[in-house]
Amino acid sequence: MDMARVFHMNAGTGETSYANNSLLQKKVLSLVKPIREEAISSFYREKLPRSLAIADLGCSCGPNTLFVTYELIEIVEMLSRDLNHESPEYIIFLNDLPGNDFNNIFKSLECFKQKLRGQVADDGIDQCYITGVPSSFYGRILPACSLHFVHSSSSLHWLSQVPEGAENNKGNICITKTSPLNVQNAYCHQFQRDFSLFLKCRAEELGEGGRMVITLLGRSSEDLSCDKSCYIWELLAKALNEMVLEGIIEENQMNSFNFPFYTPSSSELKLEIEKEGSFTLNHLEIFELSWKAACGDDEELNNNNNNDGYKVAQLMRAGTESMLVNHFGEAIIDNVFHRYQHILADRMSKEKTMFFYITLSSTKTT
Amino acid sequence: MDMARVFHMNAGTGETSYANNSLLQKKVLSLVKPIREEAISSFYREKLPRSLAIADLGCSCGPNTLFVTYELIEIVEMLSRDLNHESPEYIIFLNDLPGNDFNNIFKSLECFKQKLRGQVADDGIDQCYITGVPSSFYGRILPACSLHFVHSSSSLHWLSQVPEGAENNKGNICITKTSPLNVQNAYCHQFQRDFSLFLKCRAEELGEGGRMVITLLGRSSEDLSCDKSCYIWELLAKALNEMVLEGIIEENQMNSFNFPFYTPSSSELKLEIEKEGSFTLNHLEIFELSWKAACGDDEELNNNNNNDGYKVAQLMRAGTESMLVNHFGEAIIDNVFHRYQHILADRMSKEKTMFFYITLSSTKTT
Repeated sequence: MDMARVFHMNAGTGETSYANNSLLQKKVLSLVKPIREEAISSFYREKLPRSLAIADLGCSCGPNTLFVTYELIEIVEMLSRDLNHESPEYIIFLNDLPGNDFNNIFKSLECFKQKLRGQVADDGIDQCYITGVPSSFYGRILPACSLHFVHSSSSLHWLSQVPEGAENNKGNICITKTSPLNVQNAYCHQFQRDFSLFLKCRAEELGEGGRMVITLLGRSSEDLSCDKSCYIWELLAKALNEMVLEGIIEENQMNSFNFPFYTPSSSELKLEIEKEGSFTLNHLEIFELSWKAACGDDEELNNNNNNDGYKVAQLMRAGTESMLVNHFGEAIIDNVFHRYQHILADRMSKEKTMFFYITLSSTKTT
Repeated sequence: MDMARVFHMNAGTGETSYANNSLLQKKVLSLVKPIREEAISSFYREKLPRSLAIADLGCSCGPNTLFVTYELIEIVEMLSRDLNHESPEYIIFLNDLPGNDFNNIFKSLECFKQKLRGQVADDGIDQCYITGVPSSFYGRILPACSLHFVHSSSSLHWLSQVPEGAENNKGNICITKTSPLNVQNAYCHQFQRDFSLFLKCRAEELGEGGRMVITLLGRSSEDLSCDKSCYIWELLAKALNEMVLEGIIEENQMNSFNFPFYTPSSSELKLEIEKEGSFTLNHLEIFELSWKAACGDDEELNNNNNNDGYKVAQLMRAGTESMLVNHFGEAIIDNVFHRYQHILADRMSKEKTMFFYITLSSTKTT
């Protein structure tokens, strides 16, 4: 599967769109705000740059896309006022794969800039240059030393490709307890290759002293097949396997499909950062979020298991549909997610199901 | 009419798309190649930059979008080889209004880069960073001194807005022989404001010695309502006025519509460049192109008046539909261009109808 060509969050603003099913990712962004705030503030106080270049990697398209950009500009504008320093010009690079719905983002920029002008700064904010960078972040996306701040949230658990050598992961679509050891190793090595390349590229793009804050789904233990990180995928596989049994999906189709998804442990992340050598890790934080974080804050609906199942299924659909369609075709999609919804609702009513996140804040040092 | 929100070339690759109806603009790009070649070559020989930042303003979406980028990289790569100098990294800024179909461009970039690698340079060309800049070029779009080369073709005849004070241009949709003097002046002043702002912004964005090559539709005489530049619009107005007479379009709807389009003379362009003061004009070239340049090179079809009318109507439709729909609604569009096609076919069979173009090549000096 050619990820750069195939993979994208569901476009538009319809029922199955990412824009409409990204409450979990929004919640994650909110929880990490203090870490971003510390990182951008200490960078800005130290350097007082006249021009501040920020990249958001895996920006996607929806209400979350400009959330961090807005917040970072707001923080820097307030700091500038406190320090009685002329506010900088902003150069924002919104990055995602070429299949991302950049058109939709671009159409929202005028409104975004008006909001910035109205709420954050009365003048000077005109100098906010926003560009789209359609390229895989597992490679260089911008010139050397062109960035001061790199942000990425809920993106780096996606690998650059399905690992080679994971072909015998029968009945599974990701690492699970029943995955053979060679499959587990293939995933693990793919992550190491991808994440070290990511670090190398960012180290080249960030100037000295530049900051990077990344958040991704992770694993709470060193066990590659620990329940928490795989469980949501096991349930999706359950839906697909039901359809295999009913003859709706061919068995070899199912057996030849894996998602390019990996949840590292914090020690795996730390090891890659040490090995690459360009970054100092300032801060590592782990946190858990209930699957119900995907369901929003409506209390009445939140006590409704069917709604929970629906919302989590939609969350997963918005992120995985492009790859499922590429492999299985469009015809089965509604069926898969209908089954998945009920499987999820059942599990969520009986168990406490959690996502495990890891956030890293680091400085480019050498 | 909010141009930044409304105006865009027709998206996609269908019958009425810009991608499918931009042979004229392609022809213009080809004719201007020697001028671009001289400009980029002399800049590169003089500066030998390690990083070359190029902006294409009004890049649109279609086969023309990356035409100039490819050509410029090809020229610089050949020069690098001749001079035995390491080839630079390329930073390409593709600019257009936010309504432009950037998604389509972005999806074609992988293929474009593969072509570059295969045909232009075997190595090093990986360092070609392509970004989208969705913003009006009648304003700053990039940081100060961030560019070495600015290109714009077939875009600057579009104004930033319909001039205020042109409300009494009854029965017309642009400057014509019958436009009142105040309308002519309003258009003229709007162009002066827009073009001087364009020059000021580019002067800020280009580093010293940076080059700019622009090509736009122009006027061959100082007379604001001279036949050549207005005629194609007069014929479109003819189609609309027919529909007013038949009650399909309301008269006040027609009378309240004008296109934000202006064709300056070469002396008007020179005057604004002198007034702004940052650019030295190296070269000004004028050339004419038959309307038939929109029809392609198929000889059999080219002797077919109906095909000529159809092709020129499609050319005009690809560029104007977004604005016509915004004002008149979608329902009349097919009807307008059906009539326009026949009017054009008739005129093209009886007259030698020509577009008049002006190309400027300049250097940012102070």
